[in-house]
Amino acid sequence: MAAINENYLKLQGSYLFQTVARKVHEFELGNPDVRLIKLGIGDVTQPIAPSVLKALHKAVDEMGTQATFRGYAPDLGYDFLRTAIVENDYRKRGIAIEADEIFVSDGAKSDCSNIQEIFARDSLVAVCDPVYPVYVDSNVMAGRAGDFNEEKHLYDRLIYMPCTEANGFTPDFPEEKPDLIYLCFPNNPTGVAITKDRLQEWVDYALKIGAVILYDAAYEAYISDDALPHSIFECSGAEHCAIEFRSFSKNAGFTGLRLGFTVISKKLKLNGKSVHAMWARRHGTKYNGAPYIVQRAGEAVYSPEGAQEIKDQIATYMKNAVYLKTALKDAGYTVYGGENSPYIWLKTPDGLSSWDFFDLLLNRLGVVGTPGSGFGPNGEGFFRLTAFGTYENSLEAIRRIKSL
Amino acid sequence: MAAINENYLKLQGSYLFQTVARKVHEFELGNPDVRLIKLGIGDVTQPIAPSVLKALHKAVDEMGTQATFRGYAPDLGYDFLRTAIVENDYRKRGIAIEADEIFVSDGAKSDCSNIQEIFARDSLVAVCDPVYPVYVDSNVMAGRAGDFNEEKHLYDRLIYMPCTEANGFTPDFPEEKPDLIYLCFPNNPTGVAITKDRLQEWVDYALKIGAVILYDAAYEAYISDDALPHSIFECSGAEHCAIEFRSFSKNAGFTGLRLGFTVISKKLKLNGKSVHAMWARRHGTKYNGAPYIVQRAGEAVYSPEGAQEIKDQIATYMKNAVYLKTALKDAGYTVYGGENSPYIWLKTPDGLSSWDFFDLLLNRLGVVGTPGSGFGPNGEGFFRLTAFGTYENSLEAIRRIKSL
Repeated sequence: MAAINENYLKLQGSYLFQTVARKVHEFELGNPDVRLIKLGIGDVTQPIAPSVLKALHKAVDEMGTQATFRGYAPDLGYDFLRTAIVENDYRKRGIAIEADEIFVSDGAKSDCSNIQEIFARDSLVAVCDPVYPVYVDSNVMAGRAGDFNEEKHLYDRLIYMPCTEANGFTPDFPEEKPDLIYLCFPNNPTGVAITKDRLQEWVDYALKIGAVILYDAAYEAYISDDALPHSIFECSGAEHCAIEFRSFSKNAGFTGLRLGFTVISKKLKLNGKSVHAMWARRHGTKYNGAPYIVQRAGEAVYSPEGAQEIKDQIATYMKNAVYLKTALKDAGYTVYGGENSPYIWLKTPDGLSSWDFFDLLLNRLGVVGTPGSGFGPNGEGFFRLTAFGTYENSLEAIRRIKSL
Repeated sequence: MAAINENYLKLQGSYLFQTVARKVHEFELGNPDVRLIKLGIGDVTQPIAPSVLKALHKAVDEMGTQATFRGYAPDLGYDFLRTAIVENDYRKRGIAIEADEIFVSDGAKSDCSNIQEIFARDSLVAVCDPVYPVYVDSNVMAGRAGDFNEEKHLYDRLIYMPCTEANGFTPDFPEEKPDLIYLCFPNNPTGVAITKDRLQEWVDYALKIGAVILYDAAYEAYISDDALPHSIFECSGAEHCAIEFRSFSKNAGFTGLRLGFTVISKKLKLNGKSVHAMWARRHGTKYNGAPYIVQRAGEAVYSPEGAQEIKDQIATYMKNAVYLKTALKDAGYTVYGGENSPYIWLKTPDGLSSWDFFDLLLNRLGVVGTPGSGFGPNGEGFFRLTAFGTYENSLEAIRRIKSL
């Protein structure tokens, strides 16, 4: 008699952004005349850059001729893309990562959620609170998170590391010793970056206790302060204890094209076993490579023209971020993030709960954000806005919020 | 202290096609002058059809303009594609599947390997022998397959259903009662199709014992006999016990574009829980949708022009299949498949083992196939050739094989 994976029954509500989408959809049905300003889900709005478009068209043409047609891609990614990544994202920063330590995929969300598969079922997992829900939910599904404690709003077998105003939204080492530690900097949802010294302390800590850091660097392109690390591999010893996730979604507007990659050094071993080899096996068995045309698009991001176009896109979003942050501060809000990240993390006014503030902004102002409590108990009383809208919409959002 | 998923250590060798690729690569390094004829991995060779190319270019252009740019796709697929699939693949055959029962993905390999996640860890799994390795390996990784028995060359917690000349390569019901049953028709690797009556018996059996059939129909487009079922949902009651996997890879040459889909009826429930809802949650949490441009390409496959072009492509491959089968028979080989499938399943001559025949063909003739034993013990003594090469290469392969 077939039976379901009972761990799924422990998942709380539906996935945060699906709930937001449903509420927005309902509002739109009831209020067809209201022009919504959507600063909720972290989706980009600028079109694909000209150099990337050109590369896409060229690759599509190649697919139309027998001599240049490409079938199955190499499971781990085309060499041309892995080489471009290594040269530009790592070697230029003095990081010794090899092309065959890059695993190309359809995005960081897939990799972040799949990575737990290669670790022991009873691994003790530490996550930040608030946290990107995918880290938690993928471990709940695998049975690693234990049961949900309704009172505390926490899973009883996860280690939560509070990220609060008190610690500058950078977690302290937990009391219990974790096996796997998810870190994300610049952080989603708080928008706060980590210093190189502090990240080095985390690497040293992981090496000391034998933990693996799962480092989500999806927002590294938004770092404006040159002193901040773009990769965990800038820290000494990280190749022995860390896995890094990167994305083209936010860096180059690929949310609809789907491309990302994971970096695992061949030096990362657990009990003598190569984690690199395990992920290669996982990729080879359960995945068939990212589309050729999309990998060519990724390559174009690193061309001189592509790199400049992408830099301009990011500058446009960061102009929104700076405006949102400044204007909200001027309006009396307490605001974090927005300097090295496209996310603005604001305290809700008058002690409103995150979802009450969400409903207020949606129903009274037609502005969509993301309730902080959706990211964990320590997100309660906070609210996330993204800089991914247009400048005009960012202005309009502030105009409406000021009218409250 | 972090630890690996020990189940990975139970995996046998590397993934079959990676081993084949390595051997071929080594041969090529040592024999740069030999023109290899590759009829091994089931990769297509014909370029993308003109209508599909046109749709790709159009979609790429849309991505370049703010007004038509698309970011994150709906997790479960765009309505335009889900509707086209339902209309053409199901309603036209009188099958009552709804658009929201279609889950669009990056390919059937991903779906076939991920589907096991939503079922209980202790599910008893039945597979055909020989079998597409992904069904087995994904369950080994999840710890469902038990240990590998070196003597029998079988995992001790899987139920193997022999597919042999004696039963026409269609499995008999196993003695033990499975919870999950993987079936693939037209079959990879044997190339044999299943009759509607026999498939109905499997559906009735699954309903009786409360099992779920995981039905891989990736090769349905190659069916030439009108009486054969293209979908398990042609069988009465299948909506209550079956999940179907479909692919654009072999139907429309999308191996390098990546598109597939899974069909789960909302009527499929286990212990009152909706399997459809579980897969939706899995998709929403661990996946971010197939690229917009690729989904538009998929839509074009169903346009009148696209459908005709695709039909012509398949006819070209099937011309190879018929030629290979006939010529091998003429040369004295015992051959199966190749009538409703792009695969030819031949008995190795002189009682040679599958890998010995592989080495012989590679090293003496420069012809690449796939050793049957790589698909399971009952594949020993067999060899798979694909019809995905060019007609010229199919002729050349036969010329060389006849020279043995």
